Amino acid sequence: MTEEIITLDYGSGGGKTAALIEELLLPAFSNERLNPLGDGAALNLTGQMAFSTDSFVVSPLFFPGGDIGKLAVCGTVNDLAMCGAEPLYLSLSMILEEGLPMDTLRRVVGSVAQAAKEAGVEIVTGDTKVVERGRGDGIYLNTSGIGKITHPGLSPDNIQPGDAVILSGTMGDHGATIMMARDDLLEGSPLRSDCQPLHRLAQAALNAGGVRVLRDPTRGGVATTLNEFTDSRDFSVELAEDALPIRAPVQAACDLLGLDPLYCANEGKMLAVVSAERAGSVLQALRKTPGGEDAAIIGRVTTRAPGKVLLTTALGSSRVLARLSGAQLPRIC
Amino acid sequence: MTEEIITLDYGSGGGKTAALIEELLLPAFSNERLNPLGDGAALNLTGQMAFSTDSFVVSPLFFPGGDIGKLAVCGTVNDLAMCGAEPLYLSLSMILEEGLPMDTLRRVVGSVAQAAKEAGVEIVTGDTKVVERGRGDGIYLNTSGIGKITHPGLSPDNIQPGDAVILSGTMGDHGATIMMARDDLLEGSPLRSDCQPLHRLAQAALNAGGVRVLRDPTRGGVATTLNEFTDSRDFSVELAEDALPIRAPVQAACDLLGLDPLYCANEGKMLAVVSAERAGSVLQALRKTPGGEDAAIIGRVTTRAPGKVLLTTALGSSRVLARLSGAQLPRIC
Repeated sequence: MTEEIITLDYGSGGGKTAALIEELLLPAFSNERLNPLGDGAALNLTGQMAFSTDSFVVSPLFFPGGDIGKLAVCGTVNDLAMCGAEPLYLSLSMILEEGLPMDTLRRVVGSVAQAAKEAGVEIVTGDTKVVERGRGDGIYLNTSGIGKITHPGLSPDNIQPGDAVILSGTMGDHGATIMMARDDLLEGSPLRSDCQPLHRLAQAALNAGGVRVLRDPTRGGVATTLNEFTDSRDFSVELAEDALPIRAPVQAACDLLGLDPLYCANEGKMLAVVSAERAGSVLQALRKTPGGEDAAIIGRVTTRAPGKVLLTTALGSSRVLARLSGAQLPRIC
Repeated sequence: MTEEIITLDYGSGGGKTAALIEELLLPAFSNERLNPLGDGAALNLTGQMAFSTDSFVVSPLFFPGGDIGKLAVCGTVNDLAMCGAEPLYLSLSMILEEGLPMDTLRRVVGSVAQAAKEAGVEIVTGDTKVVERGRGDGIYLNTSGIGKITHPGLSPDNIQPGDAVILSGTMGDHGATIMMARDDLLEGSPLRSDCQPLHRLAQAALNAGGVRVLRDPTRGGVATTLNEFTDSRDFSVELAEDALPIRAPVQAACDLLGLDPLYCANEGKMLAVVSAERAGSVLQALRKTPGGEDAAIIGRVTTRAPGKVLLTTALGSSRVLARLSGAQLPRIC
């Protein structure tokens, strides 16, 4: 690896691919399942497992609060956590663009390793492909993951009128940060992506009891995720506008860019629908868990407008929040 | 989905993404684990499992004998089979380029569904991202897979001097086909990719007994895969040139393009290193299994040149086959 950029040779399956694996990837992800290295990892699994996949094409690759590597680990860890699972193992597949500086790859790989360590998961298998200049955008990543389901049966089907809708923290931080970064508007800004693993928050909520369903409101934001809950069902969700936790710089960025924080992607937030009786306990449990300090009850499940999500203002007027309909935020994750 | 091309909207996580899932993907991959659709699939797994991942960036997307969809299913099915596992579940993640004709996507998705059916695996979870024009190349796919290990402990570490090296069929068909397709040299040619699932051949070999290790010689071809076996070990592999099964059109294409079939990618072939005593039985078992009719013993494990792969000609002279060192065949899979 004396070259300082990625060439097509690194995707050939030959000597350069082997050098990349042996000199960069194996040292970063060192664990016993990577030794010996074969066509896949052998894992002892027993019981109900969650299996999830996500590809990551975020632009720019690096942003305040994270980068594509951290995002790729947190994204799949969070999908597993939302299934009521303890995340265990990840795969990592990379599509690199010819000409990518080796230092950029090193930073991203380091970030994947660090995020995996923080989330308590192992990278156990992987793949690397290289495409010609102009056929990619630096780095695209895919992570797939396996986790052990500790709390089975979470589903929007369990939701009941009267349930509380809890959000584990502020809205829109990731989306607003990426859009401002893309427009080079971040200088001096306190904006940061909320990119973080959610497995501890998920377990805290689940252990407090009464949880109907968990979901991380990524692309499409809180409004779109809630629409997935209400869609074709006989209940509505009513959000209280003044209960929505939004940081001032996020609101300011959204105002500047013409975005709505309700539709902005989050990468470290969890929506939990919880029985009315347990809502207080879940809220307390979340607030005591790092990353959940700003958790809030943002709304209730009602029967006022079945199938719909409503936003009620402090003055008492309501409007319907539809799903995101266009590409408000392309390549946000 | 009235538009006939993929727009950035389809990657937004909003209404278009939902339409793509509901109108195209769910009907194609229909299985009970996709219902209800959450952040991941719930699977009951018990015992030792293989977990593997691969991204696919082949160009062109369609070629005689297959397309990127079939390749993506077979690639991961085969990696699992080479681990001694019965392939069970796949994830499918797509990175689509803005402007991709919807019909192209439909064909590829149909092909994924068909290949999964043939290989007896279910697509249980997925993801779709869209990148701007000029940041991709139509479609990139990732599949990750889980299989149940029926024959644990396969490893190059088990290889012994005296073992036979068996190839399950002809060499270089996929690589030669793709390279000729890329240069528009295929008209009237009988060349076809060998893209096929290998799980039945793997089980046939394993049930016949004496198998030390299985590996599918994809990128880098037979020569590179054998080098992975011998690398840093105290044995050599000696191949007999006149025992190598190569179709005449593949040899002709390789001669034309200046390629060596030993380094050309295969997508439906298996290398098995087998004890001398069981080699005959394994060979017979393979030849009786569809897709293994041309199986042959192509070499032996010796101690003549530890760590190396040697090719011996009919005249008795030998040369060392190194690993593939450059990007002989970029974007072959």
